[in-house]
Amino acid sequence: MPPAPSLITLLTDFGTKDYFVASMKGVILTIHPDARIEDVSHHITPHRIDEAAYCLQACYRAFPEGTVHVVVVDPGVGSRRRPILVKTGRYYFVAPDNGVLTPVLNMEEDVEVREIENQQYRLPSPGATFHGRDVFAPAAAWLAKGAALSSFGRLVPDPVRTNWPQPQVTTRTIIGEIVYIDRFGNLISNISRAQIEAGMIGQPEIRVGAHRSETLVANYSEGQGDVLHAVINSNGMLELFLKEKSASERLQIGVGAVVELNG
Amino acid sequence: MPPAPSLITLLTDFGTKDYFVASMKGVILTIHPDARIEDVSHHITPHRIDEAAYCLQACYRAFPEGTVHVVVVDPGVGSRRRPILVKTGRYYFVAPDNGVLTPVLNMEEDVEVREIENQQYRLPSPGATFHGRDVFAPAAAWLAKGAALSSFGRLVPDPVRTNWPQPQVTTRTIIGEIVYIDRFGNLISNISRAQIEAGMIGQPEIRVGAHRSETLVANYSEGQGDVLHAVINSNGMLELFLKEKSASERLQIGVGAVVELNG
Amino acid sequence: MPPAPSLITLLTDFGTKDYFVASMKGVILTIHPDARIEDVSHHITPHRIDEAAYCLQACYRAFPEGTVHVVVVDPGVGSRRRPILVKTGRYYFVAPDNGVLTPVLNMEEDVEVREIENQQYRLPSPGATFHGRDVFAPAAAWLAKGAALSSFGRLVPDPVRTNWPQPQVTTRTIIGEIVYIDRFGNLISNISRAQIEAGMIGQPEIRVGAHRSETLVANYSEGQGDVLHAVINSNGMLELFLKEKSASERLQIGVGAVVELNG
Repeated sequence: MPPAPSLITLLTDFGTKDYFVASMKGVILTIHPDARIEDVSHHITPHRIDEAAYCLQACYRAFPEGTVHVVVVDPGVGSRRRPILVKTGRYYFVAPDNGVLTPVLNMEEDVEVREIENQQYRLPSPGATFHGRDVFAPAAAWLAKGAALSSFGRLVPDPVRTNWPQPQVTTRTIIGEIVYIDRFGNLISNISRAQIEAGMIGQPEIRVGAHRSETLVANYSEGQGDVLHAVINSNGMLELFLKEKSASERLQIGVGAVVELNG
Repeated sequence: MPPAPSLITLLTDFGTKDYFVASMKGVILTIHPDARIEDVSHHITPHRIDEAAYCLQACYRAFPEGTVHVVVVDPGVGSRRRPILVKTGRYYFVAPDNGVLTPVLNMEEDVEVREIENQQYRLPSPGATFHGRDVFAPAAAWLAKGAALSSFGRLVPDPVRTNWPQPQVTTRTIIGEIVYIDRFGNLISNISRAQIEAGMIGQPEIRVGAHRSETLVANYSEGQGDVLHAVINSNGMLELFLKEKSASERLQIGVGAVVELNG
Repeated sequence: MPPAPSLITLLTDFGTKDYFVASMKGVILTIHPDARIEDVSHHITPHRIDEAAYCLQACYRAFPEGTVHVVVVDPGVGSRRRPILVKTGRYYFVAPDNGVLTPVLNMEEDVEVREIENQQYRLPSPGATFHGRDVFAPAAAWLAKGAALSSFGRLVPDPVRTNWPQPQVTTRTIIGEIVYIDRFGNLISNISRAQIEAGMIGQPEIRVGAHRSETLVANYSEGQGDVLHAVINSNGMLELFLKEKSASERLQIGVGAVVELNG
């Protein structure tokens, strides 16, 4: 069991212009004044569950054990999808049950999932549901304050899992796809260093869409000119980039583009 | 009287690219190292007092009692407009006296307004006034540190109030306006749930500009297709939206557009 | 020697959409749970060392003594440029040795520079170097936790200094340049109030590119119409602006534009 949590992170598609994130923080601090809050991102493309899932899995393990990670990217807010609370051997997660926690459910051990049902842990809403403020923020605050897991609601044996794309690995060929574009326009694939090391002999030939990358360099600084380069990125995944330019814009490549390795 | 404050929130139009917000935070922490700072927003459209006033009134009550809310949207910085400090029964506010606190002054009770005059609570500026750093941040920090209200300056009996648009309610008709566009392009009006419940019989017909909304749905997730929908939003106000699209962009509707209800 | 640090600030070009900044914060809090983290900016134009240097020098002195300022704008990540740690009489700095600390090295006293070599203060990376997460964040956290300076690595006698442009001052003429454009489109020059007061007799004539400013006003609020105005800004530097408009966009003036004063 993780130690008592005191740190709460927030990952949403609310942006930072409006009062949405501030409302969540106010609610958390009203319930639990000693809670500590850090932002992961509020600039997820609205309603893009896959983008939030990627962001979360890329950084949640950097935080101390016991951290409560709150994710609110929720196209179905107000519908019957369940708000859930997940405890793993190391972390807590609070999110809508819409698949945004799929990578966490795949990677973590000792997973317990509960529905957030207890009305005592919710705020009354004067209108349409703002679950970020009225359900997820209070649940995270009460959890961080030490409320018992079982007091939140019933066990959920079948949390929603979305199709988290896995590369196809055959003899000397790996077919994956671009799963995330970062702020620099770099193209992040779902192919891992381990998969490349297991399946390739020497330098693979790498194709993404109509484009080809000759070399797998060790670092961004080794990139040269206007040529597409590949690198194993800081999370151990194959990433395509143009030196100091946006590969996504220049080459018109987005999430879902096929990446093929032969070698 | 609110409990001793330790939490300071910041709402400005400074953006987050430059060093302006950081300067304010540095000043606060130099004066009061134990102060806790949370951002409300720094992306208010430059000089838009009405937008800041809306944002503030939409979330300030989510924060714990005793919170010091600092608002710096200040087209008249350097002119003779007064910097003020407001204490209410529950919160403190630090802002220019330009009307940005109008909704607070309308809604809060036991209001005391003082001018920030005491030079001991100001930083010397090496040039043009940066009141965010040199006046408002230090005032908030000293206040949070426990400085007596009366030590800041004289009472202000007539703080500036801007015209905060109120809907016109007649028999079975309410005429209001759009007062805020959020990041999703949703159109937020100044018509409240209470006004609709008091004035309408059954489902009202709702018009905004040349567009009409047939139904008042309970939640965003009930919206369908490309049709304009209305909802009582999470703050209890009538809001118009297109499902997962920007109503403001698609329908070219902005702040000030007339909203008419008949029913 | 500054007091024991507990406050860490972050200045990067990582943006706030992705998981990069969150990863740094997670690493810091895992190593030093009591560290306090404040953002300076994450919206430096990618790889613009000069912009980051300007931002840093404009606000770092607002923070309490002993603050650890972390700067990660690092076009050469993964190359042989050294990661360094700087202690001055008042602050600590953690950054790549690429010149981004030039103004700090110029302004601060009692400067000690060390290379961050100790592998115990680094995280292992699963791929390409993410020095923000794997080198700079842990170094800042260990420093804030009290690790001895000498334990980080060898002294660096020759930290990289970039050409930090200085205005040319001759009799009744000062020739400088625009060094920063802020979010409002204001044009900030490298000419200081002291240089103007020493070199000019009365109101100088000010030219920037093909444009001319007649008057040095005391505050932004004194600006009028569509005329270019000059002001000594809140950091004591000469700044050109259009009232409530972007001078940079309207007049097509960017960083590097020559500013000439005669008077």
